[in-house]
Amino acid sequence: MRTLWTNARVITAASDDATPQDLEILTEAGRVLEVGTGLDRTGAEIADCGGALLTPGLVDCHTHLVHGGDRAREWEMRLDGAGYEDIARAGGGIASTMRATRAMTVEDLVETALPRLDHLLAEGVCTVEIKSGYGLEIGAELNMLRAARRLAALRPVRVITSWLAAHALPPDYKGRGSDYIREVAIPGLDQAHAEGLVDAVDGFCEGIAFSVAELEPLFARAAELGLPVKLHAEQLSHQGGTAFAAGHGALSVDHLEYATPGDAAAMAAAGSVAVLLPGAFYMLRETQVPPVDAFRAAGVPMALATDCNPGTSPVTSILMTMNMGATLYRLTVRECLAATTRHAAAALGLGTETGVITKGASADFALWHAESAAQIINRIGFNPLKARVFKGDFV
Amino acid sequence: MRTLWTNARVITAASDDATPQDLEILTEAGRVLEVGTGLDRTGAEIADCGGALLTPGLVDCHTHLVHGGDRAREWEMRLDGAGYEDIARAGGGIASTMRATRAMTVEDLVETALPRLDHLLAEGVCTVEIKSGYGLEIGAELNMLRAARRLAALRPVRVITSWLAAHALPPDYKGRGSDYIREVAIPGLDQAHAEGLVDAVDGFCEGIAFSVAELEPLFARAAELGLPVKLHAEQLSHQGGTAFAAGHGALSVDHLEYATPGDAAAMAAAGSVAVLLPGAFYMLRETQVPPVDAFRAAGVPMALATDCNPGTSPVTSILMTMNMGATLYRLTVRECLAATTRHAAAALGLGTETGVITKGASADFALWHAESAAQIINRIGFNPLKARVFKGDFV
Ligand SMILES: [Zn+2]
Ligand SMILES: [Zn+2]
Repeated sequence: MRTLWTNARVITAASDDATPQDLEILTEAGRVLEVGTGLDRTGAEIADCGGALLTPGLVDCHTHLVHGGDRAREWEMRLDGAGYEDIARAGGGIASTMRATRAMTVEDLVETALPRLDHLLAEGVCTVEIKSGYGLEIGAELNMLRAARRLAALRPVRVITSWLAAHALPPDYKGRGSDYIREVAIPGLDQAHAEGLVDAVDGFCEGIAFSVAELEPLFARAAELGLPVKLHAEQLSHQGGTAFAAGHGALSVDHLEYATPGDAAAMAAAGSVAVLLPGAFYMLRETQVPPVDAFRAAGVPMALATDCNPGTSPVTSILMTMNMGATLYRLTVRECLAATTRHAAAALGLGTETGVITKGASADFALWHAESAAQIINRIGFNPLKARVFKGDFV
Repeated sequence: MRTLWTNARVITAASDDATPQDLEILTEAGRVLEVGTGLDRTGAEIADCGGALLTPGLVDCHTHLVHGGDRAREWEMRLDGAGYEDIARAGGGIASTMRATRAMTVEDLVETALPRLDHLLAEGVCTVEIKSGYGLEIGAELNMLRAARRLAALRPVRVITSWLAAHALPPDYKGRGSDYIREVAIPGLDQAHAEGLVDAVDGFCEGIAFSVAELEPLFARAAELGLPVKLHAEQLSHQGGTAFAAGHGALSVDHLEYATPGDAAAMAAAGSVAVLLPGAFYMLRETQVPPVDAFRAAGVPMALATDCNPGTSPVTSILMTMNMGATLYRLTVRECLAATTRHAAAALGLGTETGVITKGASADFALWHAESAAQIINRIGFNPLKARVFKGDFV
């Protein structure tokens, strides 16, 4: 069954040009057969897009969408002047998310994640990455990724998973990062991989999390399993995680506020994508902006993602994330669009499978009540999505 | 017909305490008869709120919701490095909104404003202020407020209007601010008032707009007509607009980034509300935060509003505005809630008509899938509204 998508203003996102073009798209069996004008419509059903702007379905390439509980109370306390000590005493911080996540079944995790996922889908997202990282013990980490896989079965969306057991140290491993990696992160990865739960291996390289030396055996195991790696790095300080990740051919390095031009060069050489997470930057009132000019100069592709998580980025809006990319990081409109389509797909190792409208790609589209990408990204709180198409079907 | 609202966790917003309480609310003919526990339910229909959090319907007390066109292209150009000169040459800036607005009929203005209004309503807004100010000639200014009145007839919402002809100088009055006030702003106000279009008179006191001396005759005319005043003041620089407005007993002074403790004292003496507009602050990448501590110290009530406008604050999310109030201005959660309920109503001269759940108030409620105000305000892009009640009816 062929479908010809007509009467759309198309941004294919195949290049940096975000100018809408009058193109038709021929699809079959969920894939793009051809993009162009005057296409052969023999036997094709016509999908009239009513003049809508049509872009690739959006890709949110960094989320912690599956988790237990929320941290709104702790946020409220900070606004009331509480310090980290007070919050820790009140049972807050990442440990509270760990406890809430461990207390949940896979079904609980799915049920609480669904409304968040639905908000992303309502903004045209067709692909979402979901990390483990709040269980911090093997069983709960596995459950997080089981929930992520379950979500993909419940909604028309592509879910890519990352094993992020190396997200934080659970209290019982305090001061014993290497023990945790050896006893939890690596054996858990083996189990998760055997169960088909893992698409990539992730970690958090930071003073408050793990060092390069601690992460090395985990990334070595990922390589043995044939799994790609990515890393949260240089968010709060420069720890060398970027060079380390690039040295392992990382798909992406994420956050990057404190990355250097040297890091950018290493990423360019490795083909790593810079995943920028302005939601966390905004919520934490950071002032150190990632070195966007260095990424441009080195030719490092930049992606933007919600970083949806209960602590530092309770964000379920990819549109607001794009606005923040422009407003806070001064990305151009073209860059913001590439950052949630082609480059975000690359950050997930998806190549041209999605995030671009080109021959052979999955027919994942977002249709917008808008005339330009700028009209989508400029507004705050206004969702101009007209329709979402996943693997060739309106969903 | 009486209704007893039960099984809700209620924040009445009557005080600064935002702790939800187990209260029942008895309403009749669109008004609150009683708030308490164990209320007499004789003859009352029961509205079971299913355990939802119930707050006053929200109040967006400063918007330019009615306008022609958009300025996304100009925003895109700025991100590409264009300066104000380039944008002016390309036909951008407020003059472009003026031209687009003048070119529209009342019907056009209504039609384009409706989706924006609907986004606000979807987040629990029950009252919205709408200003003129993009027509900059009498007929087009009148049309903007006619459109605002029309919107109130088309949707279950309370619309309060402000005559803001003194928003900017149209090109043909360049350098002749006093002439414009005398020839356009004042006679237009007379006409608009005669037509029942005006609830308050507003102006923009700024180097790029009008001086106190120019605005004085306009505010004098407002007083003669028995209309309250408000003012955009001290947004980009300190021009003395706050003291001037307070001297006229202004309902509110709005923006206030450059206000001083002396201004705060004058506002406190006049009973003026400080309307903070963090959307514009965010979009303009301002760094000068309004003197929140001075407002607290002086006892000036603070409101938050979207400032929805195509140029500096294309914001249709009152929830994101509250988040920005907390994140960017460090308002507490309690303050953010009061800022979009009780204090926002005061900024519109509504007293306890709405924005508070108390005997005699309009039965305007927002029901939320949330356990606390913090859970509503903390998230970005997640709308937990469960239902909206306007004048006693689910809408
Ligand atoms: Zn993350
Ligand atoms: Zn305004």
